[in-house]
Amino acid sequence: MSKRLWQITEFPFQPERLQHFETIFAIGNGYLSARASFEEGHEGDRPATLVHGIFNNAPGEAVPELAVAPNWLPLRITIDGTPFTIQTKAREYLRPAGGIVLGYRRTLHLDRATLRREVLFRAESGSTVRLEFERFASLDQHHILGQRLIITTLDSAPTIRINADLEHVPDNDVGHWTCANAAADTDQISWTAVTSQSGYRIALASRLIAPGCVESAVEENRATLATTFQLEPGQAATVDKLTSIYTSRDVADPLAATLLLNSAEADAYDALYEQHCRRWQEVWDSSDFVIEGDDKAQIALRFAAYHLLIAAPREDDDVSIGARTLSGLGYKGHVFWDTELFALPPLTLTQPNIARNLLAYRYKRLAGARQKAKEYGCAGALFPWESTDTGLETTPQWSDPQPDGSRIRIWTGDTEQHICSDIAYAVLQYWRWTGDDAFLCAMGAEIVLDTAVFWGERVEAKDCRYEISCQIGPDEYHENINNSVFTNRLAQWHLEQALKLLGWLADNAPDTARRLVKSLDLSEMRLARWQDVVDKMYIPFDRERQLHIQFDGFFDLEYIPVLDYQPRVGGIWPFLGHERALRSQVIKQADVVMLMALLGEEVGPREVMLNNFKTYYPRTDHGSSLSPAIHAWVAARLGLDEIAYEMFEQAAATDLENNQGNVADGIHAAACGGLWQAALFGFCGLHLTEDGPQVDPKLPAHWRRVSFSVTYRGEKHRFDVVNPAV
Amino acid sequence: MSKRLWQITEFPFQPERLQHFETIFAIGNGYLSARASFEEGHEGDRPATLVHGIFNNAPGEAVPELAVAPNWLPLRITIDGTPFTIQTKAREYLRPAGGIVLGYRRTLHLDRATLRREVLFRAESGSTVRLEFERFASLDQHHILGQRLIITTLDSAPTIRINADLEHVPDNDVGHWTCANAAADTDQISWTAVTSQSGYRIALASRLIAPGCVESAVEENRATLATTFQLEPGQAATVDKLTSIYTSRDVADPLAATLLLNSAEADAYDALYEQHCRRWQEVWDSSDFVIEGDDKAQIALRFAAYHLLIAAPREDDDVSIGARTLSGLGYKGHVFWDTELFALPPLTLTQPNIARNLLAYRYKRLAGARQKAKEYGCAGALFPWESTDTGLETTPQWSDPQPDGSRIRIWTGDTEQHICSDIAYAVLQYWRWTGDDAFLCAMGAEIVLDTAVFWGERVEAKDCRYEISCQIGPDEYHENINNSVFTNRLAQWHLEQALKLLGWLADNAPDTARRLVKSLDLSEMRLARWQDVVDKMYIPFDRERQLHIQFDGFFDLEYIPVLDYQPRVGGIWPFLGHERALRSQVIKQADVVMLMALLGEEVGPREVMLNNFKTYYPRTDHGSSLSPAIHAWVAARLGLDEIAYEMFEQAAATDLENNQGNVADGIHAAACGGLWQAALFGFCGLHLTEDGPQVDPKLPAHWRRVSFSVTYRGEKHRFDVVNPAV
Repeated sequence: MSKRLWQITEFPFQPERLQHFETIFAIGNGYLSARASFEEGHEGDRPATLVHGIFNNAPGEAVPELAVAPNWLPLRITIDGTPFTIQTKAREYLRPAGGIVLGYRRTLHLDRATLRREVLFRAESGSTVRLEFERFASLDQHHILGQRLIITTLDSAPTIRINADLEHVPDNDVGHWTCANAAADTDQISWTAVTSQSGYRIALASRLIAPGCVESAVEENRATLATTFQLEPGQAATVDKLTSIYTSRDVADPLAATLLLNSAEADAYDALYEQHCRRWQEVWDSSDFVIEGDDKAQIALRFAAYHLLIAAPREDDDVSIGARTLSGLGYKGHVFWDTELFALPPLTLTQPNIARNLLAYRYKRLAGARQKAKEYGCAGALFPWESTDTGLETTPQWSDPQPDGSRIRIWTGDTEQHICSDIAYAVLQYWRWTGDDAFLCAMGAEIVLDTAVFWGERVEAKDCRYEISCQIGPDEYHENINNSVFTNRLAQWHLEQALKLLGWLADNAPDTARRLVKSLDLSEMRLARWQDVVDKMYIPFDRERQLHIQFDGFFDLEYIPVLDYQPRVGGIWPFLGHERALRSQVIKQADVVMLMALLGEEVGPREVMLNNFKTYYPRTDHGSSLSPAIHAWVAARLGLDEIAYEMFEQAAATDLENNQGNVADGIHAAACGGLWQAALFGFCGLHLTEDGPQVDPKLPAHWRRVSFSVTYRGEKHRFDVVNPAV
Repeated sequence: MSKRLWQITEFPFQPERLQHFETIFAIGNGYLSARASFEEGHEGDRPATLVHGIFNNAPGEAVPELAVAPNWLPLRITIDGTPFTIQTKAREYLRPAGGIVLGYRRTLHLDRATLRREVLFRAESGSTVRLEFERFASLDQHHILGQRLIITTLDSAPTIRINADLEHVPDNDVGHWTCANAAADTDQISWTAVTSQSGYRIALASRLIAPGCVESAVEENRATLATTFQLEPGQAATVDKLTSIYTSRDVADPLAATLLLNSAEADAYDALYEQHCRRWQEVWDSSDFVIEGDDKAQIALRFAAYHLLIAAPREDDDVSIGARTLSGLGYKGHVFWDTELFALPPLTLTQPNIARNLLAYRYKRLAGARQKAKEYGCAGALFPWESTDTGLETTPQWSDPQPDGSRIRIWTGDTEQHICSDIAYAVLQYWRWTGDDAFLCAMGAEIVLDTAVFWGERVEAKDCRYEISCQIGPDEYHENINNSVFTNRLAQWHLEQALKLLGWLADNAPDTARRLVKSLDLSEMRLARWQDVVDKMYIPFDRERQLHIQFDGFFDLEYIPVLDYQPRVGGIWPFLGHERALRSQVIKQADVVMLMALLGEEVGPREVMLNNFKTYYPRTDHGSSLSPAIHAWVAARLGLDEIAYEMFEQAAATDLENNQGNVADGIHAAACGGLWQAALFGFCGLHLTEDGPQVDPKLPAHWRRVSFSVTYRGEKHRFDVVNPAV
């Protein structure tokens, strides 16, 4: 595998992008992720290791969030007494006060999920050393984290001291952890703590394999392993720090498990790393999407896949991917529809076991969804707009303070209800692609049918038709509107699919059908109502202009020429202010366009699709990172090649170029999944036929060729698409 | 022409790279270049327009430098009274104190040598405007500079005031200009000034074509054209500023020429720009090098060619390209061997008229070269190491202060004498490729022969061989060394070529031969000595290790493992200090390797070439930007594919990624030319045979295909090389 299009490099150090790189250079293995903070720390950094499922509602906080785990990264290094840091600037090179960084390069290796950093450092004494850092979160053994430092002296014999620590991360002092306990054994240190509200126990243990006599100690804020040694000129020393980590979600006694694992693996860095790389090779064999003719797109797509793959739970079907993955604290680690409609579909196609885990997470939270529906006065299941470990609605009701100090009421937790159908869509897509009838019968059907039960009750019969009032569609700039075409049409589709599904179950899995009919009360009357809704759902449509109306009264709002608000970072919402945006036609993200992505030609004939796109595209400000990739996908299908590629580029730049301005808070999981889907479903036109998966390519003109694999019903199908346009 | 690989973009604004972008986004037309400073100015900027040939030795300065021309860029804009600037940061978006930049994008269009900047700006009043700036230095009419601003209001009716200025740039207050005079006519403003020592007169005149009533005025430090107008919501206004410029190098009365040209062209922006683009299309038709399979390399190569093409004098054979082009003040605009051996060869192959101008510049300065040889006690011509308008040696004798305050003696002006042969090499290469016998007879032969006269006298007969003591080779870390293998071998080659050339002239241009024999005193005795030198020149060589010795005693110096000093920006010289570097084997740049690039297999058999490369490559710190590309070239020829591509990437990153850390001072002309040569001569193996140009490709494995044209004896030869390795 040539390395050329598998690497992203920072050279030289870019201090103004410190937090951006912390996010995009995060490593992970589906069990946890760690932001790319320096081993020695740095002013303004935001170190965070986030472990799937470890939510906590800290005292005084409105909602739970992922608790930042204890920090396992620290390696404090002194060279002849000079502490190694990146921040020093000295004008004198030969004996620099405070030391000086002579060179710096950091590279994320996507192919093997490894972060490497090389630094040339000169201490005050004049000693120059080369430091090579490497870190990985083992994909083979999810509870093991590996760090290696190779330190080479160039022309002197410096004394090197290394402290390898485990320590608490202040995490904004919201008080997630209690009972923190640091311990020092003869050859390892450990750290245990308990989340303050949810009571999850966590344990980490570290071992240091290094020259010199390694000693352990507990200091005020940390447990530490220390060693001191001297090197001869030209000599290199290898220092390995191996950390194991467990929580009470994994085992009954995390500390015991941690200590046991860590002592077993203490000297096995090379073997661990080799296995890690082998596992990644297997992952890429299934998930890589190769583009010839566009290096930037190639790297961006691999980068997007990488971040989904390190965030996606591989061995845990009780957690899901948050909107910002595990790479930052944006949206507090909460799970949105971003997972099911953006991140999940490419995994369904390439890593179906992971997709199944993600869907099982929802299944296991049907109780919370039923409670929410009940609070809403309906039977069935209404999944929360923001979901954590509990399955309860965790959307905050008020925003953080705006520039003028006011807070804005957030309605999405109340009225953005299309989440039900988004999840049902993902379940059915998974089932169609995998043929996993066992999952369908055990979990999937119940999700689809019980959310259908909710819709059946939620819709409002009015004047011989059904309406849905007071909703928020994907375009969240418009709140509590009536008859969102996205929501109405998807609810209609959902009920139609539910009826079909029930028919399939009756024929193919009668026990399941009977069980669900009974437990979900799928009475004849209820099913008849579903059919009536399918027949009579109101879909706002302008017959004269032959296009869908995003919601009732949309075109009566103020028109704002969004495309003129260029260039910019993020959307134009901040430029308009909340009140004006509410009263304008500015759309946050693909909404009617999203519907066309999901349902394709079921939405209408090509003419209507084109009218829709040409109407809504220039009104959309892409204030959400979910938007550009979906526009790319739909534009590609409609033959709007130039817009398709432009939107693809914009989606690709979301995290890599920080074009929303907020990557410090984490990777945009939906942008990653959207980009991958734009390539698969948009440019390649991947779709299922009776004969299995087929493509209908509309590649960008300069893409000479793409190749990728998808798994259909357990069999790998390889596509190699040569662009006829080249 | 697809735009994709022809653009370099800054998005969003990157303040920490302000001066870097000022350099790399410079525009020019071979008459002048202008750094990419903002129209409205910015804190920390270094605006500079440099016009070829306008050198001045300011009072108290050791050497002359290019004088920064008056600034023609300023456009001061206020929106409802808020001055437009990029630097404002406001937290309040709706009515931002001091105004706020809502968005920023700047793009250099390499295909049409145009710089564009788009800004979304909101004034304190709340008015939002979109500003689109465009600028170009006409390739069709070299004395015309075009600026366009399109200002669009989005949702208000702001009052816009624009001032278009001509003003003096302080240029560090060294006092280059006297007699500055600003004038305001009814419809244009002008600025005239005279360089303080050299007496060059310069004149600029500007006209503003804009809505409102344009009025002119002279203010304290500027001449200005001002207009005020109001726009309706959604309305756009076009503001064109056209500036013409002449110096006394061009015409007797620069002001008259300037005013006349400017009034003739005042409303012709569109027509001017169209012609400009057409001319660039022609240029690229001859000079583009297309790479398929490596987008980054493609952009880097176009970028390199662009910067040579905007710096290269198209209609002036009395100026040459400085080491930092016209894009910055590094090396004060002085001309080094960088021109003849790095920048010039690709122009010889693709734009031979420009190459001829550059060589004519040297011919016209033979008087200075003869004076220098004479001062050295020799007949013949010894070109100055650093050259300006006068042709006299202008290398400073002392460095700027080092960190410890001391200054270092600079010896290159005294003893880096290979410049003679470098220029002769370029002349002969030009002649071989173009078959321009007229140039040879009129100018080229005299350069080659009179520099040969110098060498014939300079060499020292010792013990039945000839030596050259006290030299500096390309590796400038080692000063005043004896028997530089580069210098000795090139002098030997030079004398051999001189003898051949004289033979050719005798046969084919006997009048020229007679004239030169007489004027240069090419006596039988002198020619016999040349032949003796050719036969007996001492070339330091280690027979046992079968490799060349860079100079006498090189391997007795301290060995330093240069490759371990990674990563870094620039060379390791600053890390070692001057004294230690002098006593070490650390090599600044391709030296023996440079010789192998120039003479190829004439240097020795493949085994020796490989030994040389493998010996000198790990000792070279590439402290000069001239180095990596030459290593790429030679490594490619030797089949060292990995090193070849790595060095190519390093060369490509010189200016784009600022990997020497000093791009603020200007583009590295030699890195640009070197990169282009590495592609042509290295990877493609372009060479001349009796049947004309041929290739012998050793393309990087992932380059699928390259195509380019070269002009050989007036005919265009197109090469389309498909990589057999793909």
